[in-house]
Amino acid sequence: MAAKQLWIAALGGVNEIGKNMYFLQYADDIIVIDCGSKFPDESLLGIDLIIPDVTYLLSNLDKVRALVVTHGHEDHIGGIPYLLKQLNLPIYATRLTLGLIENKLREHGILRQTKLHVIDSESTLKLGAITTTFFNTNHSIPDCLGVVFDTPEGTVVHTGDFKFDMTPVNKQYPDIHKMADIGKNGVKFLLSESTNAERPGFTPSEKLVGAHIEEAFMKADRRIFISTFASNVHRLQQIIEAAHLTNRRLTLLGRSMVNVVRVAQELGYLTIPDNMLIEPTEASKLPPEQVTVLCTGSQGEPMAALSRLANASHRQMEIQAGDTVLIAANPIPGNERNVSRIVDNLYVLGAKVIYGSRSELHVSGHASQEELKLMLTLMKPEYFIPIHGEYRMLHHHSLLAEAVGVNPNNIFILKNGDIVESSSGVVRQSGKVTAGQILVDGLGIGDIGNVVLRDRRQLSADGILITVITLSQADGRLLNEPDTISRGFIYVRNSETLMDEINQLVTSTLQKMSEPDLGQWNIIKQTIKETLSRFLYEKTKRRPMILPIIIEV
Amino acid sequence: MAAKQLWIAALGGVNEIGKNMYFLQYADDIIVIDCGSKFPDESLLGIDLIIPDVTYLLSNLDKVRALVVTHGHEDHIGGIPYLLKQLNLPIYATRLTLGLIENKLREHGILRQTKLHVIDSESTLKLGAITTTFFNTNHSIPDCLGVVFDTPEGTVVHTGDFKFDMTPVNKQYPDIHKMADIGKNGVKFLLSESTNAERPGFTPSEKLVGAHIEEAFMKADRRIFISTFASNVHRLQQIIEAAHLTNRRLTLLGRSMVNVVRVAQELGYLTIPDNMLIEPTEASKLPPEQVTVLCTGSQGEPMAALSRLANASHRQMEIQAGDTVLIAANPIPGNERNVSRIVDNLYVLGAKVIYGSRSELHVSGHASQEELKLMLTLMKPEYFIPIHGEYRMLHHHSLLAEAVGVNPNNIFILKNGDIVESSSGVVRQSGKVTAGQILVDGLGIGDIGNVVLRDRRQLSADGILITVITLSQADGRLLNEPDTISRGFIYVRNSETLMDEINQLVTSTLQKMSEPDLGQWNIIKQTIKETLSRFLYEKTKRRPMILPIIIEV
Repeated sequence: MAAKQLWIAALGGVNEIGKNMYFLQYADDIIVIDCGSKFPDESLLGIDLIIPDVTYLLSNLDKVRALVVTHGHEDHIGGIPYLLKQLNLPIYATRLTLGLIENKLREHGILRQTKLHVIDSESTLKLGAITTTFFNTNHSIPDCLGVVFDTPEGTVVHTGDFKFDMTPVNKQYPDIHKMADIGKNGVKFLLSESTNAERPGFTPSEKLVGAHIEEAFMKADRRIFISTFASNVHRLQQIIEAAHLTNRRLTLLGRSMVNVVRVAQELGYLTIPDNMLIEPTEASKLPPEQVTVLCTGSQGEPMAALSRLANASHRQMEIQAGDTVLIAANPIPGNERNVSRIVDNLYVLGAKVIYGSRSELHVSGHASQEELKLMLTLMKPEYFIPIHGEYRMLHHHSLLAEAVGVNPNNIFILKNGDIVESSSGVVRQSGKVTAGQILVDGLGIGDIGNVVLRDRRQLSADGILITVITLSQADGRLLNEPDTISRGFIYVRNSETLMDEINQLVTSTLQKMSEPDLGQWNIIKQTIKETLSRFLYEKTKRRPMILPIIIEV
Repeated sequence: MAAKQLWIAALGGVNEIGKNMYFLQYADDIIVIDCGSKFPDESLLGIDLIIPDVTYLLSNLDKVRALVVTHGHEDHIGGIPYLLKQLNLPIYATRLTLGLIENKLREHGILRQTKLHVIDSESTLKLGAITTTFFNTNHSIPDCLGVVFDTPEGTVVHTGDFKFDMTPVNKQYPDIHKMADIGKNGVKFLLSESTNAERPGFTPSEKLVGAHIEEAFMKADRRIFISTFASNVHRLQQIIEAAHLTNRRLTLLGRSMVNVVRVAQELGYLTIPDNMLIEPTEASKLPPEQVTVLCTGSQGEPMAALSRLANASHRQMEIQAGDTVLIAANPIPGNERNVSRIVDNLYVLGAKVIYGSRSELHVSGHASQEELKLMLTLMKPEYFIPIHGEYRMLHHHSLLAEAVGVNPNNIFILKNGDIVESSSGVVRQSGKVTAGQILVDGLGIGDIGNVVLRDRRQLSADGILITVITLSQADGRLLNEPDTISRGFIYVRNSETLMDEINQLVTSTLQKMSEPDLGQWNIIKQTIKETLSRFLYEKTKRRPMILPIIIEV
């Protein structure tokens, strides 16, 4: 990098939803924005979590000044513990965000070593040649900030996640006046989130959900179970208010719900009337019309509270006929079937269930098209980089930018690692830094690669067939009959004949092999694999993994 | 079963979507309605297809009179080839349905042995003491019938799949007058499909889709690729009309699309102007504004045409910048991510893509709540059995039946196998027949059980660790160092130390075992499994399958 260039890039979050991580680099100063994680889809078998590859930062340790975090959602903070195990850098975030980050660091045992600094929308940070300021935005969690970087190559604005909620539950209004001023002063680059860029219109206010929750609470005549995203403190507040209105006590089920409520209440983001919160055991003893249960699992997660309640397998509470269950969330794509299964089971238990998009118990936390155009209009950027979205979302967002007047040549749809460079006012997309995904599996970070995943896929589809061949060390002779075992293939009891045929085939294959070949284990294994593969496919139309093992005695 | 009872039961299709199969039994006559298949969800690893368990029919072979098929969708005909391999029975279906069934039987090589009889809405079948008649319904495939069984215990009506489309594309109007007459004459039992029972309102007419398709065709300036369900002949007809209107030729991509178009055209269900249909190679040579490509893959199926086109890996055609792609289908739950990925890739290729529920390029083929209530009102049944749905759909449908006046005590929400019995006018739910799912995997039918699936799940999550222990036949001594191999676990190169540790642990475990225990291979294997399991979980937080193999030489 030549001196005095501005670089803007994503290490995660473009061309995908999840693991958001962006950075600005001016001369010798790098500021990182967010460090999130991502949940694997069904093709990444056995993987727990995905985090961004931060090789570039590790190769430029001396330049990394700070991590600025826009808000406390997992896809913005979930990667922080893993990042901090590789490099130390000060973290700047709002009070609630910091509280949630601290929770994570505590769980990973690295709380003490990290410098955490509280900021708010009035803060100013001078990090090298870059002056950083902030502005309030709305989202489905409180205390979110957009970020303004004042650099010698111009102003860069990063919106964080946002919507425009003009009737916010916590009265934390979107700071439209400040945004207008920022735009008026000139924005060179705007990085704006694209999650709902395919949706026409304006995302409704969270207050609307509160009204529907209240309605549902007033209609319910026995216990109320309500499930929503634990991080949506605005919604939790409205649930608390509905419980208060209908003279119900409130109990919490699910570790993340208990955690978030505790942190939010301690830091003053949640106001809970005295005596409202009770333990689940207490709740089980109260008359049903006095009980509200707030639980995790609104995305159908099999291990979470709602799923256990639906399976009648929760240790502390049970659904009774006539109870009302409110699912205040829309399933994220991929989770629909789990949620449907829970709804089925709740009906079988005799509950009344209110769920689905028609129930109006949920609104998105992300801006739809009109709000995205509003942000573009307030900021009036010269250059536009849509972020936080899969390709089609970035594409639609770029069309919106064009529609409001941004020059289409000034719009960059990036991949993770692509660099937008500004040098003496000349802007172009130029070069890449290392970027990619690191897979977390159990305690292992980054040690599961394509080979292992490919193997898991084959194992999951057709299982494995292991054939052990015992050869004499002295003369390479077959000492025993080959021994074949399978797992995940055909159930052995049905297939004794097949196993015999396989063993005979292995024996005859070895007998047909020439002397020199028999001396090379690679060739033996390869020949056995090919022969068995063909045989099994013909017999069964299945392709189990075939693993010949040679033992020499 | 006492003589002269009427039994009604489902062998598939209640408490689930898929593998529909119902039967009526009066005295010694059994009539089967439909025999469908079901696609596995992600938990049934490596399974190709699920079909109903027909043990009950096999135990009553002499009583089975006929299979009546309501229409040609996979979830109503997909199980027929497997059924016919187990018992022979005549099949009654409409011409198009029979054409699709014949295709299947031909593929399975059993066409010649089966008696296929064409019926239509005017047919009457006398099967034992049961007289069977039919009525026309609308659905997302032509030639659908509802079925009326006249038995000594009263009339049983089975709706098949239906909606009320008052402006049907093929002018095959729903026969409301006949339905009204059936209801007037008295319906004892109504079995009605519940797919859209959660949806308020009235499902829009297929004609609406035609209008939007036409609009999209008129706006497109280069090639048009349109993907929809191959079986939706109504929609194919409208696509052909839009192509004709805009002077475009039509080519087909995808085996099922080619098959359905051929069968439908031969039997007169599809009218295609002369010279419209061309081969893909021809299409590639025409000017882009003269080309329409109708392809499979609207559900994001990775092997189908649309996915290959989006990956630029289709052998015959490619998407060029400026081409328009219309996805005339809504993703079935579970398929959203595959479809989204395709949309992303199409945008990257520079196509314009019209997709999603807002595009109005798709309407459902199933009745919503108002139509379900209309059917209930026309039929005025005394007893109601909601079918063709998951529990919550059956539940909502039963609420609709109550709302229109059916006595709630006369509504039966069944599981597969449950019997509704009517004897001398007395009706009750009583007893069960065998019912369940048979898993088809490769050429194997029913040989994959829970053990194999459970094993595949463990293999898919954490892989397998195989440790081969060679013992002396003479004195049970360990002859070699144990040999440990893994697949789908950690990539070996990163884990040589771990493998050494494992081998040492196995050796030391064996050394610690007492003489008598060492004589029993079960105990050796169990001890090794437990020791390694604990060790590996502590070290890696992973739980691979552990397979100790003992070789005695």
